[in-house]
Amino acid sequence: MTDPVSLSADLIRCPSVTPEEGGALQLLASVLGGAGFECHRVDRGGIANLFARWGAKGHARSFGFNGHTDVVPVGDAATWTRAPFSGEIADGVLWGRGATDMKTGVAAFAAAAIRFVTETPPDGAIILAITGDEEGDALHGTTALLDWMADQGEAMSACLVGEPTCPNEMGEMMKIGRRGSMTAYFTLRGVQGHSAYPHRALNPLPAMARLMDRLASHTLDEGTDHFDASTLAVTTIDTGNPANNVIPAETRATVNIRFNDAHSSTSLTEWLQAQADQIARETGVTVDMRVTVSGESFLTPPGPLSDLVADSVQAETGRRPELSTSGGTSDARFVKNHCPVVEFGLVGKTMHQVDERVPVEQITQLKAIYTRILTRYFE
Amino acid sequence: MTDPVSLSADLIRCPSVTPEEGGALQLLASVLGGAGFECHRVDRGGIANLFARWGAKGHARSFGFNGHTDVVPVGDAATWTRAPFSGEIADGVLWGRGATDMKTGVAAFAAAAIRFVTETPPDGAIILAITGDEEGDALHGTTALLDWMADQGEAMSACLVGEPTCPNEMGEMMKIGRRGSMTAYFTLRGVQGHSAYPHRALNPLPAMARLMDRLASHTLDEGTDHFDASTLAVTTIDTGNPANNVIPAETRATVNIRFNDAHSSTSLTEWLQAQADQIARETGVTVDMRVTVSGESFLTPPGPLSDLVADSVQAETGRRPELSTSGGTSDARFVKNHCPVVEFGLVGKTMHQVDERVPVEQITQLKAIYTRILTRYFE
Repeated sequence: MTDPVSLSADLIRCPSVTPEEGGALQLLASVLGGAGFECHRVDRGGIANLFARWGAKGHARSFGFNGHTDVVPVGDAATWTRAPFSGEIADGVLWGRGATDMKTGVAAFAAAAIRFVTETPPDGAIILAITGDEEGDALHGTTALLDWMADQGEAMSACLVGEPTCPNEMGEMMKIGRRGSMTAYFTLRGVQGHSAYPHRALNPLPAMARLMDRLASHTLDEGTDHFDASTLAVTTIDTGNPANNVIPAETRATVNIRFNDAHSSTSLTEWLQAQADQIARETGVTVDMRVTVSGESFLTPPGPLSDLVADSVQAETGRRPELSTSGGTSDARFVKNHCPVVEFGLVGKTMHQVDERVPVEQITQLKAIYTRILTRYFE
Repeated sequence: MTDPVSLSADLIRCPSVTPEEGGALQLLASVLGGAGFECHRVDRGGIANLFARWGAKGHARSFGFNGHTDVVPVGDAATWTRAPFSGEIADGVLWGRGATDMKTGVAAFAAAAIRFVTETPPDGAIILAITGDEEGDALHGTTALLDWMADQGEAMSACLVGEPTCPNEMGEMMKIGRRGSMTAYFTLRGVQGHSAYPHRALNPLPAMARLMDRLASHTLDEGTDHFDASTLAVTTIDTGNPANNVIPAETRATVNIRFNDAHSSTSLTEWLQAQADQIARETGVTVDMRVTVSGESFLTPPGPLSDLVADSVQAETGRRPELSTSGGTSDARFVKNHCPVVEFGLVGKTMHQVDERVPVEQITQLKAIYTRILTRYFE
């Protein structure tokens, strides 16, 4: 039987920093293929993705799992206590990049699925849609997999994304939706001049300061039934003018918004444009705004799927997970267009950090939870 | 007799971009020495300066002239209509870097002084204090010359700085003081975090935006008897955060203030610090502020020296120059600690620009004005 801890360690040893496959999907295909899963590599635009199915294609009861094997860069490897791709286990803790986000989640689900189909083959199908492009721009990752599945007549009737969802304790939180995310890029242009003669110039910086103060001071909302309040973060303001006797002609800023179901990217773009236009009118500077949308907010309303997962978590951990919509984006934003989707995984405290690590106990517990989910789903 | 136009052209041909001497002071020492001036090179910290005196050392009537032969860089020489160090004269216009700022001023005064002492040797002294470090940080320039003069018992009873002072027409403006200049460097620090979890971070950017908006919106004063209103320019805000999913820990900004005699650098530093402290209290970010002072404001009140210069300008040009304190700093801010000082020079329209140039007529007119000033001073 596949051990989720040693599979996790083996996956960590594959240096799969986005966009590198690093051998991770090859390893999974081999393990899953050996257990009777039909595997297809769906490689697009230099990105590797893996589709694996046990059971009949197009079955009405097809439980899906979505995850990723790519990881973020390790930063300065010399600052890690243990080599980031060593997959060392010491004192019951597995170390390495991907230990929480989310090679362990993939390993736990693969091990759970293999055990389940081996011991109690269900009347249905189990699908694993694993991408190598979640931490990157996600252009050729889960979306490419889902497009390929649609072309092939492959479908999931429900899906669980295995991202780490617990802030501190195993089992305390699952996700039933996510806020949307969008980014606005502002360029303000005035007229360059000498600091000693500001009346002959038009300085875009006071206009930028006022615009950013207004945006950051605005309360978008107080939260909705299932969502926290929307947030706005000014992430950078840059001018690059080294001369203090020169008033610059141009300055740029970036604003990131995480928004709940009280908004859409369209309504927020309109609000941002109105603020930009107002500043342009007040100051005379030219304001250019460009917006990119990572995803709209979405919600899988509490119901059978969230009950199934919450019940399974509670049975294994004794904790009833909070149904949350907090946090950043995940590939669930793509999956939600295909079937009901929720997210549950282990404690993500050290994700993206130096010395990313997880107690091995959480990995075996996660496998048990995933096994229970499969069992109940196919009951 | 020394021709101010050909001397100007010869000086332009010396490539004396700060801190290079470029042969300019050597040329002047040769010309002035040949006319009976006692010349001393005062070289400090890699910078060349020239002191020249005609007449008795320590004479109670010693008219001084201050100027500089160093020039700012030419930028992209290929964009100049005529080579920037060629000193070409075409259609009555002298071209080249330094044509207005201020090799012509130095040449006009040297030529005027030589003519004056040759034709009508005065009972008194004429001093030229010429620096090679006005466009740079001015640490080893006019201040070094003045220190050396004090050590040697050399003194001026009045001084004219020959910087270009006329905005558009020859003779329309002279300077009787200058605003002070200071620069404040702000570093705001918070706590880095993920854009999706702003409550776990402390973003310094909204605090910076608010601080800069407040500083830029504040009216320092409405002007004083002899000064325009003080001005404040935010010259740069920089963060350098390329990741729109990261809230940065730190951001920096620079603010340049040109202030009149309603303020001092001390009073303004106190005001800035109070604003910084207020923002720190409101937002919780840490605010570091560092201030550098280029010079305090100063004024040579209207009186005998300004009358002498204004009368001479009017006699030669038909225009009575406005007594102004506008514009950036000049080395007059150092000279004012030693003797009454005013500034008069030609039209500075093209200073620091590509295709810096001046009608040769202005150079001969300037020589005539400087000659008349010397004549009246020693009458």
